[in-house]
Amino acid sequence: MALSIKPIADRVVVEAAPAEEKTASGIYIPDTAKEKPQRGTVVAVGGGKVDEPLTVKVGDEVLYGKYAGTEITHEGKEYLIMRESDIYAII
Amino acid sequence: MALSIKPIADRVVVEAAPAEEKTASGIYIPDTAKEKPQRGTVVAVGGGKVDEPLTVKVGDEVLYGKYAGTEITHEGKEYLIMRESDIYAII
Amino acid sequence: MALSIKPIADRVVVEAAPAEEKTASGIYIPDTAKEKPQRGTVVAVGGGKVDEPLTVKVGDEVLYGKYAGTEITHEGKEYLIMRESDIYAII
Amino acid sequence: MALSIKPIADRVVVEAAPAEEKTASGIYIPDTAKEKPQRGTVVAVGGGKVDEPLTVKVGDEVLYGKYAGTEITHEGKEYLIMRESDIYAII
Amino acid sequence: MALSIKPIADRVVVEAAPAEEKTASGIYIPDTAKEKPQRGTVVAVGGGKVDEPLTVKVGDEVLYGKYAGTEITHEGKEYLIMRESDIYAII
Amino acid sequence: MALSIKPIADRVVVEAAPAEEKTASGIYIPDTAKEKPQRGTVVAVGGGKVDEPLTVKVGDEVLYGKYAGTEITHEGKEYLIMRESDIYAII
Amino acid sequence: MALSIKPIADRVVVEAAPAEEKTASGIYIPDTAKEKPQRGTVVAVGGGKVDEPLTVKVGDEVLYGKYAGTEITHEGKEYLIMRESDIYAII
Repeated sequence: MALSIKPIADRVVVEAAPAEEKTASGIYIPDTAKEKPQRGTVVAVGGGKVDEPLTVKVGDEVLYGKYAGTEITHEGKEYLIMRESDIYAII
Repeated sequence: MALSIKPIADRVVVEAAPAEEKTASGIYIPDTAKEKPQRGTVVAVGGGKVDEPLTVKVGDEVLYGKYAGTEITHEGKEYLIMRESDIYAII
Repeated sequence: MALSIKPIADRVVVEAAPAEEKTASGIYIPDTAKEKPQRGTVVAVGGGKVDEPLTVKVGDEVLYGKYAGTEITHEGKEYLIMRESDIYAII
Repeated sequence: MALSIKPIADRVVVEAAPAEEKTASGIYIPDTAKEKPQRGTVVAVGGGKVDEPLTVKVGDEVLYGKYAGTEITHEGKEYLIMRESDIYAII
Repeated sequence: MALSIKPIADRVVVEAAPAEEKTASGIYIPDTAKEKPQRGTVVAVGGGKVDEPLTVKVGDEVLYGKYAGTEITHEGKEYLIMRESDIYAII
Repeated sequence: MALSIKPIADRVVVEAAPAEEKTASGIYIPDTAKEKPQRGTVVAVGGGKVDEPLTVKVGDEVLYGKYAGTEITHEGKEYLIMRESDIYAII
Repeated sequence: MALSIKPIADRVVVEAAPAEEKTASGIYIPDTAKEKPQRGTVVAVGGGKVDEPLTVKVGDEVLYGKYAGTEITHEGKEYLIMRESDIYAII
């Protein structure tokens, strides 16, 4: 599941979940929800900042702000690269 | 009462109280009150920040800013995910 | 005099004094004074921040900014919840 | 000369000097001077902040910004409560 | 590959990749992508800041913000000088 | 040359040089220069801030920003009271 | 090459290079380039800030932001006084 990308410092790469899905724990995020957080899976994490190690790790399912991060394309797939502080929770 | 969500750092998940209710300690927050804080129950807490452990814990009834946090939906119920600093007091 | 509310961190709950009163030490704050600080009594205090304990304690009469804090209602009485930094002085 | 007011943290209470006066050291601050600092006497000081004790003490004559502080009235006299950083110098 | 430039503190010099290329790891950044990060190669790095050594090193392929940095011209070639925080990831 | 004023913390009092003069080291600051720094002599210095002693001392000739500081009048002479960070250099 | 000016803290004095020149290392900065950094030689450096010694030294050729610093005139020559953080690189 991990990508061959090394985000800098407190950045992480997230693969967004397909819209209208349910998570294992039953959180349902409809595609039409405006302003609601998005769900995705962490696929790469940075090394953290001085004295601030990251909390999320590769494989974590996370909720993050709807407008968080910057899109990158890798082998035809879209990913988001964002700061860990853009992530609300591990679900 | 606890949710299977792990908020990041200083974030907490709160279940808002139904409107027009009285708390055990008798604080009454009418639904029509504009700008008044809202009441709710903490259902998940993050791990805190470096050297700043969180004060609230799961099960605490709290007052928080009317516009605090971001809504998430879980098994048909609405929750709010917010930073602990959006919480005014434990009641 | 203390309320059963536990403000978070550096927040305190203040019961505002009735308008046009004189304090024991003789400070007179007329109701019509514009921009003048308000007087009240501290009824609950938070636990302070890391390395920054609070100075005010329950029972202290204080002066605070006219627009400081957020109103809460408790058993028919209005209180203000504010940060200690909104308080100018203990009188 | 000291007032029975305990300013919080880095705040001090100052009694403004009458306009158009000369200080002992001969600094003359005309009443009509626009934007010039004001002169006054410190009548109460706070306990300082963590690791930042205050420099001014009760009795010090000080220069402070023309628009510094908030007015309070005590036994018919006007005082100003301000942060020490609003004070330019002890004269 | 290294340039004879010594960036100050947390700055790095990057040689932008030609548009429409694929990287070794298969990340494809089309030239027409709006707001997508750019790819380039680090050719010079600063000494870092106090207690914050740099993560990237000369030779690293990196993704950086589309509008990051300032252009400099060296022997007919364009380079960008930017802060390391403008770099998203090493690819 | 020193004044009987004790600036607070990182503040200093400067006596501005007459316009159109040359300094000993030959820096010429014409009176008509717009936006150019001004020259003056330090006549009083504060005690510095915690862990940040001041660099300038009484008697130093300094260059400072054209709009730096606040004017005070002392025995008929104008002085400027400013923060040390408003001073560019000792000349 | 050094000037008899002692910049305060993290400031440095730079003598701008004549326009349209090539540096020893071949970086060419045309006079007409808009927004491109400027080249110059450091002629005086401050003592740095607490725990942040300066990186540049007298004699270094540097690139700096086109609008960095404040002009001063010394014996008929123009110099710029700027903070070290306005300097991009030593070339």
